[in-house]
Amino acid sequence: MGGGHGLAASLSALRYLPVDLTAVVTVADNGGSSGRLRDELGVLPPGDLRQALAALCGEDEWGRTWAQVLQHRFSTEGDLNGHSVGNLLIAALWELLDDHVDGLDWVGRLLGARGRVLPMASIPLDIEATVRTAAGAMEVVRGQAAVATTRSEVLAVRLDPTDPPASPDVLRAVRDADWVVVGPGSWFTSVLPNLLVPQLSQALHDTAARRMLVLNLAPQTGETEGFSPERHLEVIADHAPDLRVDVVLADADAIGDPAAVRAAAAIMGAELVLERLAVGDGSARHDPLRLAGAYERVMRARPGALRDARLQ
Amino acid sequence: MGGGHGLAASLSALRYLPVDLTAVVTVADNGGSSGRLRDELGVLPPGDLRQALAALCGEDEWGRTWAQVLQHRFSTEGDLNGHSVGNLLIAALWELLDDHVDGLDWVGRLLGARGRVLPMASIPLDIEATVRTAAGAMEVVRGQAAVATTRSEVLAVRLDPTDPPASPDVLRAVRDADWVVVGPGSWFTSVLPNLLVPQLSQALHDTAARRMLVLNLAPQTGETEGFSPERHLEVIADHAPDLRVDVVLADADAIGDPAAVRAAAAIMGAELVLERLAVGDGSARHDPLRLAGAYERVMRARPGALRDARLQ
Repeated sequence: MGGGHGLAASLSALRYLPVDLTAVVTVADNGGSSGRLRDELGVLPPGDLRQALAALCGEDEWGRTWAQVLQHRFSTEGDLNGHSVGNLLIAALWELLDDHVDGLDWVGRLLGARGRVLPMASIPLDIEATVRTAAGAMEVVRGQAAVATTRSEVLAVRLDPTDPPASPDVLRAVRDADWVVVGPGSWFTSVLPNLLVPQLSQALHDTAARRMLVLNLAPQTGETEGFSPERHLEVIADHAPDLRVDVVLADADAIGDPAAVRAAAAIMGAELVLERLAVGDGSARHDPLRLAGAYERVMRARPGALRDARLQ
Repeated sequence: MGGGHGLAASLSALRYLPVDLTAVVTVADNGGSSGRLRDELGVLPPGDLRQALAALCGEDEWGRTWAQVLQHRFSTEGDLNGHSVGNLLIAALWELLDDHVDGLDWVGRLLGARGRVLPMASIPLDIEATVRTAAGAMEVVRGQAAVATTRSEVLAVRLDPTDPPASPDVLRAVRDADWVVVGPGSWFTSVLPNLLVPQLSQALHDTAARRMLVLNLAPQTGETEGFSPERHLEVIADHAPDLRVDVVLADADAIGDPAAVRAAAAIMGAELVLERLAVGDGSARHDPLRLAGAYERVMRARPGALRDARLQ
């Protein structure tokens, strides 16, 4: 569950494991190509869904080429500037088939994708944040793009509408899962929104699946600037007080104070697992194989996760 | 060879026959979605190529669905209004792969297409026509869209530039063909332009293939308004005086004066074959199966065409 680059990184790792994958994607984007398509066509913002699909593309020339085509962005001095081809294709499939899940499954088949990609809600959403400015004033910031880049401190986010319908396929995927992995990604604008959809939150509460929360490698300029890892966990606990978590996975080098993170994890019922997850070039990017290895060790160590026969 | 609806109709018929098909498509469109993409991205106008590819799509759910997606046109009050999804996809493949033929072959593979679709030239072209107004004045009309809809009488068309490069794949297809079928379609703006590309005209002259010219079911409002079938043939002879033709195929009911058409065909060395080709609902549309039957009879009756073993 998540959105944007964080979800794509997680899927790029999970695709290495012998698991049935379903990505659940935030649909609150209102910026860039997605925002324009949402305004002009009245469709869900397709960008994060496209990125998740591309991360799951088949490994052969076919899958890799179509993923490149979908990720291609027009760069012109005209109307098409900035539009991503995959966004246009997904929007067209939605118009034609009149069904989000069906349209995304067709793109998945085109890519030979290693799993399914589903929207967390069946209608476009907006994110609204309460922030504290540098001068100490409380303000409301509206729209994913504005929240993600605010210079003020984000205190809380809400969805508008607050109770959007979730697709039955998403709820079934959560209920039938062995593991639900939440994050990494833009904390307030990609990760948290999933936990704020009431039906999805309920499914996450009811499922027998184990739950893993994956922390970011660094705070994000804008929405979580200056936030410590433990603060990230507190934000989750504030917004989803009933959420129980089994494992918090974090990069060992990105944790300033392991004891503080461990304590924050414990409040959700989670054990903290520290691994080496970063690419190692100084950038805050997850290495897909390192992340895959960490996922595998976590899931293998805890029953009901990976089927041992398939891993041998 | 051709463009637009006429070529699509011909391909919809030819796909029924056990032949290796290559469509050669006029790339002079400057109107609608194609014209805008040509201006904004500097690419070949993709519309006629897309339409030809869709006509060759695979017969299974996969092929038919992707053909529908490619033919889907956005209808909005914004920037995307009128753009065809297939045009955008083809343009993106060209930007990504930097090769027209490669890009079109990828779309062909996506559709499970029953043949190849190639542009008649490797650069975008313009059509310029000399016309006679109702008042008898001579004027020049520029651009495919304007020529196709002119209210004046079209006397002659030229390409700009006059000597565009043709792709080696097109020249090879013409040289290796058993049959080359020219038309039906917009006579001045889709059919004739193929004969005006010097390299292509030369290949058509040199090939050992038999050549068939397929007449339209009715004159086209605008560019050939009031033109008789024999006048259509004279137009070809005027623009391509060296062209030898083996068969002129026409609908029996669309020919006012068979003797006049036969005489005009004979000037090019062609025999006139009359068949029932129209859908039969009063519209000027070719019925794909009737046209397929006519193609088969013509090709089977003359050696070197269809391989008999494959037809039995």
